[in-house]
Parts: sequence; C-alpha cells; structure tokens
Amino acid sequence: MMTSDPHDPMHLAMIAAEAAAARGEVPVGAVIVGPDGRVITAQGNRILELKDPTAHAEILAIREAARSLGNERLTGCDLHVSLEPCAMCAGAISLARIRNLHFAAGDPKGGGVIHGGRFFEQPTCHHRPEVTQGHLAHVSSEMLKSFFRARRG
Amino acid sequence: MMTSDPHDPMHLAMIAAEAAAARGEVPVGAVIVGPDGRVITAQGNRILELKDPTAHAEILAIREAARSLGNERLTGCDLHVSLEPCAMCAGAISLARIRNLHFAAGDPKGGGVIHGGRFFEQPTCHHRPEVTQGHLAHVSSEMLKSFFRARRG
Repeated sequence: MMTSDPHDPMHLAMIAAEAAAARGEVPVGAVIVGPDGRVITAQGNRILELKDPTAHAEILAIREAARSLGNERLTGCDLHVSLEPCAMCAGAISLARIRNLHFAAGDPKGGGVIHGGRFFEQPTCHHRPEVTQGHLAHVSSEMLKSFFRARRG
Repeated sequence: MMTSDPHDPMHLAMIAAEAAAARGEVPVGAVIVGPDGRVITAQGNRILELKDPTAHAEILAIREAARSLGNERLTGCDLHVSLEPCAMCAGAISLARIRNLHFAAGDPKGGGVIHGGRFFEQPTCHHRPEVTQGHLAHVSSEMLKSFFRARRG
C-alpha cells in the first residue's frame, strides 16, 4: 500500500480496511483520534464475523472509543474512514459528537454524507462534524475494486 | 399505560420504553418479531447506561436478534418501535433486511423515515421495509412529553 506517512491516521484506516478484506469483509477501516492527537482505536468491518449488521468500521470505532473514554460523547474526537459513511454511520457520527470527519473515497452507491439523504445537511441533524474528503481516496478505491473483482472471479 | 392488547408487540415496545425512562433514558422501546410470529427481543434505550451513543432501542434490538438467530440478516423479521427511527436506526433497519417497520409516534425533530433524509426513499437505500405508523402513537407521545417535562422541572 502506497501512502505518504505511516503515522497518518488515514493510513492506519487503510491498514484496518486491508485487514477486514483478509477476513472476507468489505474493506473499510476507521480510526478515531482523541482531542490530544492520539489514536484511540482502529477498526475494520466485522459484519460477517460478529453476525452483526451494524458492525461497520465506524460504528465499532465509535463504540470502542466511547467505552475507552467512559463517555457516550466523543467531544473533540476526529474520525478518519476509508469510505464515505452510510446513513447509519453518518447518524452515529453525529450522535457521538465527532468533531472532524475525514473520509477517503466517496460512495455514490451507499454514501450518506455527500450522497443519498446527506444527513448532515438535514434539519433533523443536531451536530454536524466538519467534513473533509479525498485524502488517500485512490488507495481505498483500489482496495474496494480488487476486493469485489476477486469475489466475482 | 392504556393499550388494547397486552400481546401486541407495540405494547411490549411501550413497556420497554417505560423501563428506559425509569433508567433515566429517553423513553423509546423496540421489539423484533421473528418470521414465526414470536417475539425475539424487546429493548429500550441504554445510551447513558452503556456509555454508547449507538445504543438506541432499535440498534440494541437488531444486534440482539442477529445474535439470537446467528445471522446478520433478519430476513422476515418485523420491528415495532415506539418512535420514528432516526437516520442511524433507519440505516441499520435497512442493512438488517427488516421486513416490516411499525412505528408509533412520528419524530419531526429527529426522525429519518418520514422526516429529514427519508432514508428509505433514497437511491442509496438497497432494502426498503414496508412501513406503517401511528398505532399507539398517543401512548408514546405522552410518555415522551412527561419524560421531558420531568427533566425540565
């Protein structure tokens, strides 16, 4: 995997995504960084492994960070995820009070941030993270393409 | 609590909501009924108790039903919930392949089914449950009103 900086949280998200693929899960990885800049958790999809339809990387990371901080609000925490979050995860990110959301690749088929219901733009959304996108998008897209290519093959 | 039929799953959802209120949680309750018509699980909000921002009644019920059935897809299962699901829960309901969604009261402030991003109407939604609403809505609304009235008081 070619990325610029091994200490980049998005690079860690890519590693978590790669590990998910090795478990047969769709390669998505998420990392939460605390207000002090330290990585709290890195998680990949575990839907099949846990037999849990909610076990997306973002949800596992949010739950683990909340457990680790002993608080259901992740105030000042940032989430780095390899793919645009779906509606479920966008909702969870808002409920968790994530400060900054960074996602790599956009997801026209299932995304809920810049596609679909665009949750953060809705009046029913009561906490909006700052959103940035595109960093390492090519790495994430290539990983997803090769995962689905191998499954079809 | 006045409802017509104690074996009605929505009545059980109201009981789970009432128990949540007694724990200091916003009173929302959810029940999942299996394809054979039996109740698999009844859950209420546990956000504060579990320190988990994703611990909405619907998410806990979906996770518990998937665990109980040993399958991440709840094909043929129905969800009865006392309040219109938020964006996160609507996404989870779709991902879990819930067949029928019944909710009691609508939620103009935070709902994601008939309010906000209306997830099931989006092209990014790949499984749409049949949705019915309104049964026991007055019971749910009254419970929520009295919960928030007590908190303000």
